[in-house]
Amino acid sequence: MGTEIRQIHQEGPYCYTYSPFHTPITTVEVGETVCIHTVDAFENKMTPEVEHFSDVCTYPFLNPQTGPIVVKGAEPGDTLVVKIESIEPTRDHAVTGLVPYFGGLTSTKPDPTLQDALEEQWLFLPIDDDGVRFDDQRTIPYEPFMGTMGVAPKIEAVNALTPDYYGGNMDCVETRPGNEVWFPVFVEGAHFFTGDAHASQGDGELTGVALEIPAKVTVTFGLKKGYEIQWPRIVSEDFLMVAGSGRPLDAAARIAWVELINWLAADHGFDPLQAYHLLGQVGQMRLGNMVDPKYTMVAKFPRKYLS
Amino acid sequence: MGTEIRQIHQEGPYCYTYSPFHTPITTVEVGETVCIHTVDAFENKMTPEVEHFSDVCTYPFLNPQTGPIVVKGAEPGDTLVVKIESIEPTRDHAVTGLVPYFGGLTSTKPDPTLQDALEEQWLFLPIDDDGVRFDDQRTIPYEPFMGTMGVAPKIEAVNALTPDYYGGNMDCVETRPGNEVWFPVFVEGAHFFTGDAHASQGDGELTGVALEIPAKVTVTFGLKKGYEIQWPRIVSEDFLMVAGSGRPLDAAARIAWVELINWLAADHGFDPLQAYHLLGQVGQMRLGNMVDPKYTMVAKFPRKYLS
Amino acid sequence: MGTEIRQIHQEGPYCYTYSPFHTPITTVEVGETVCIHTVDAFENKMTPEVEHFSDVCTYPFLNPQTGPIVVKGAEPGDTLVVKIESIEPTRDHAVTGLVPYFGGLTSTKPDPTLQDALEEQWLFLPIDDDGVRFDDQRTIPYEPFMGTMGVAPKIEAVNALTPDYYGGNMDCVETRPGNEVWFPVFVEGAHFFTGDAHASQGDGELTGVALEIPAKVTVTFGLKKGYEIQWPRIVSEDFLMVAGSGRPLDAAARIAWVELINWLAADHGFDPLQAYHLLGQVGQMRLGNMVDPKYTMVAKFPRKYLS
Amino acid sequence: MGTEIRQIHQEGPYCYTYSPFHTPITTVEVGETVCIHTVDAFENKMTPEVEHFSDVCTYPFLNPQTGPIVVKGAEPGDTLVVKIESIEPTRDHAVTGLVPYFGGLTSTKPDPTLQDALEEQWLFLPIDDDGVRFDDQRTIPYEPFMGTMGVAPKIEAVNALTPDYYGGNMDCVETRPGNEVWFPVFVEGAHFFTGDAHASQGDGELTGVALEIPAKVTVTFGLKKGYEIQWPRIVSEDFLMVAGSGRPLDAAARIAWVELINWLAADHGFDPLQAYHLLGQVGQMRLGNMVDPKYTMVAKFPRKYLS
Repeated sequence: MGTEIRQIHQEGPYCYTYSPFHTPITTVEVGETVCIHTVDAFENKMTPEVEHFSDVCTYPFLNPQTGPIVVKGAEPGDTLVVKIESIEPTRDHAVTGLVPYFGGLTSTKPDPTLQDALEEQWLFLPIDDDGVRFDDQRTIPYEPFMGTMGVAPKIEAVNALTPDYYGGNMDCVETRPGNEVWFPVFVEGAHFFTGDAHASQGDGELTGVALEIPAKVTVTFGLKKGYEIQWPRIVSEDFLMVAGSGRPLDAAARIAWVELINWLAADHGFDPLQAYHLLGQVGQMRLGNMVDPKYTMVAKFPRKYLS
Repeated sequence: MGTEIRQIHQEGPYCYTYSPFHTPITTVEVGETVCIHTVDAFENKMTPEVEHFSDVCTYPFLNPQTGPIVVKGAEPGDTLVVKIESIEPTRDHAVTGLVPYFGGLTSTKPDPTLQDALEEQWLFLPIDDDGVRFDDQRTIPYEPFMGTMGVAPKIEAVNALTPDYYGGNMDCVETRPGNEVWFPVFVEGAHFFTGDAHASQGDGELTGVALEIPAKVTVTFGLKKGYEIQWPRIVSEDFLMVAGSGRPLDAAARIAWVELINWLAADHGFDPLQAYHLLGQVGQMRLGNMVDPKYTMVAKFPRKYLS
Repeated sequence: MGTEIRQIHQEGPYCYTYSPFHTPITTVEVGETVCIHTVDAFENKMTPEVEHFSDVCTYPFLNPQTGPIVVKGAEPGDTLVVKIESIEPTRDHAVTGLVPYFGGLTSTKPDPTLQDALEEQWLFLPIDDDGVRFDDQRTIPYEPFMGTMGVAPKIEAVNALTPDYYGGNMDCVETRPGNEVWFPVFVEGAHFFTGDAHASQGDGELTGVALEIPAKVTVTFGLKKGYEIQWPRIVSEDFLMVAGSGRPLDAAARIAWVELINWLAADHGFDPLQAYHLLGQVGQMRLGNMVDPKYTMVAKFPRKYLS
Repeated sequence: MGTEIRQIHQEGPYCYTYSPFHTPITTVEVGETVCIHTVDAFENKMTPEVEHFSDVCTYPFLNPQTGPIVVKGAEPGDTLVVKIESIEPTRDHAVTGLVPYFGGLTSTKPDPTLQDALEEQWLFLPIDDDGVRFDDQRTIPYEPFMGTMGVAPKIEAVNALTPDYYGGNMDCVETRPGNEVWFPVFVEGAHFFTGDAHASQGDGELTGVALEIPAKVTVTFGLKKGYEIQWPRIVSEDFLMVAGSGRPLDAAARIAWVELINWLAADHGFDPLQAYHLLGQVGQMRLGNMVDPKYTMVAKFPRKYLS
């Protein structure tokens, strides 16, 4: 990838929903590699000067997305393939923090109690060649991924905090450089969005906020014509994966496992119960997020067992 | 209510989302009483001739809504008050059935297993003055309510099968004649929708399908200016109620209880923990639905304990 | 019932588990009516002088039960029938309170967060002929029931805070005077326990603590030989009911509905899917508890629809 | 470890509960290394000749445990440390299968539907030096662990299928050779049990049955006097881990994360919110089981971040 790669910036306002109602910002060809510029989950507004998250961010205007990008030729019933080539930070630091009533170890708006919120805290962590400096003693390797990517639903507009069948805010570390991410196409042109780059993240995005960065992400678009899927799939060198989203985690897990079994049955010659048996012994599951409006679990099948 | 009442019909296509993107079908004044005509959850397409649900209905084109109706003067931060005056069926029978992989006692798309679906079955049940004839031996009283009612979210468009903070498909029997239903307003004019009338329903809408009817529902619109609520509230002669929606039922319940406590604290002089104590001893909870994309629980405070 | 009724007191220590390992305190005949004396959930130790719950109560020594009572002739595979005749308080006041990290609107040990606990608070509420005096303005009717009743599991000993297939701490208002409660029998003599009388309670026992009283409960024992059930059943004048317990509430609900359908199919001539249809339209569900180690939901079938 | 190591066999019947009521089979010293012999989860009764699981196994007589083993000097308030040295199969094949209404992708007794069960299927898979032969094309590496290990609760007797605060049927791959497993001690002598060896297993034990083997497991017992923990902890070369168990998976996850934060705060100088922040970025979570009466999630902290 050279200097020729087209740079895609959001010219107008960012998108706060995954929706077919936004005006496309550009069109790409199948096979084209482009570099998409994204702002961080707080639209780059959380700075050391800001006292409270709520001073600069208001629901539902959160997690701004770059897009929609029209993929020429994509039609309902196809599958969009997004190969992630690289993710580079466009700022010298990552932001993370504790937002009141948001996160994995606090009561939240969709599951409230009468308890007080945890203390609001913000960290601004330098990024250098060694990684992200958590504190004087600890540096976290730079292992970036896009927290949010996906396509427009058919008639719905869903806030960009939610992951679902069309992708969205899955917050799973597998949407990372080197991997292909597949999305079902619901509208002409697919209408691809991405944002919410993370310099790194633990399983579950436990505090609700990862190491948030603005970034430029280089991707190559592909298309599987007439190939229909129900949930986002991810292909790495070693694994076939499905990202299922729902509540509670049990439901997210079952969605991911069942779609993975359907995949193995449809494309790889497995009887469904045989695939179930084998997943019971060699399947892996990675917790994506346990903080968003829907939680995400990633079911993984090691490709070495394909036959 | 005489013949003067304005009749509101959906002229163009019905709405399949709760959304600010639909063109309003009419405008009403605060204080106005109107009669809204709705089709059933299957757009009146399930007839004895139809073999399979999937022959006539396709997701997401389900649960068609009449609307949006603009309420003059309603602004974000207000609360819309909808007094339900009456609900009359506009057909001589109700439809109910078992849709594959939908319902409370089957695995479902948002929580799948590898098991076969239950048998698809449809019932067409006559309605007469005694009620709905379930079979030769059993007649179910006509106790109608609107399965779905609510307002447009601010920037989202949510499928009409889902209940949430803006109302929608709550499928709770308390949205019935005699009761007031309150909704938070997110957009100018509120953009009210309703549909999915039920001649009767058990707690939980267990099979996923109630006694579905097309109907005309007479409502009177009110407005509480500058009065902000977080979740739909319902006022009956005997109860203050909140309909909370989420997954699992636990979360829906907690949402409803907390909003009810906030209400008692803000308007009725309770200390929050005092209200919590009292609800522990006299609160009631009614299961709305345990079948929709979000489940609904209704928390109820007996008004006789207001003081 | 006259003065002749046998009075059963716990002579030795109370039981803190539902278990086959306790020494029986007495034996009753089928058909016999007895009066069982119970202490409150805190073994009558919470008095106005006590500052903290933890000063007098320590897990797992909570919710003391009177029993086990051997029912002569009861054998595994039978069903024990307990008709509740009356429940009388043996103290002039009820106790209720907020226990740190216990209750429906706080994080808890089985579902913790990092948040601070709610304030510990205790109320001592006089009982008189009008009911329980919540405060100067509010009197709650005396509508007593046993929070906990059941039989010994086969080989397990389960803490008395948990409800399950053998009964236990269901905390549902339907175990009240006038109703029959049925339990599966797992060991010779059934080994019946009861305790945790409540002067009244809201749905869900929201604060985790009802209006707790020591009491004398008069019951009559019956036995259905060779009649096997999976979960506690309750028969009132108007309803057939099943109390299902599990987590989350969804699971408790499904357990209750399925056992109810099995009952209707086995004893009342229903085809299972016909019963499912009918419950969808006329079934009721009452929230028992949403605070104990397992939650309880009560599925109700109106007996008038039996045919 | 030479031929000197004491061999511990279950002389009488195996134990089907984690309980203080069983007669100890032997006593070990702190620091002693012993070799414990276990049968498989089906008490070695599932053979190719058996048609149905229910012909040879009946609840609650499942998952037989070897024990209890008294650890000399262990007292309530201590922590028992079990270092797993090795696990060797004592049969030339592993058994796995699909038990009706048990597993991760079927409805189950604790969360039932009206659907038919999946087909019952059994596989008998040879074990050799390369691993377990799943079929002609696939060999699964031998990566053994004990599905079940733990200590007696204080007064409860819990079926051996359930994992909880005392350990039990966690079915997580981290209870494997090379790792230390820590358990809270509730009774004099701790009363240690183990069983349910697995030749290998995928995350979640998805089918409900792993590669089940009888085994001899060599362990060394240690004791941390006066060191109190709430949930089982696991120490490997690279991780500090906690196994939390509950339903749904969300609760199991939160239990594990909170105990891990408490550990980091108590022993490693972290402020709790600092540990929360760091886990959000570097924490890992491994799905133990999503099939047992309680589910298990393992929270992991990379030891390289200890400082």
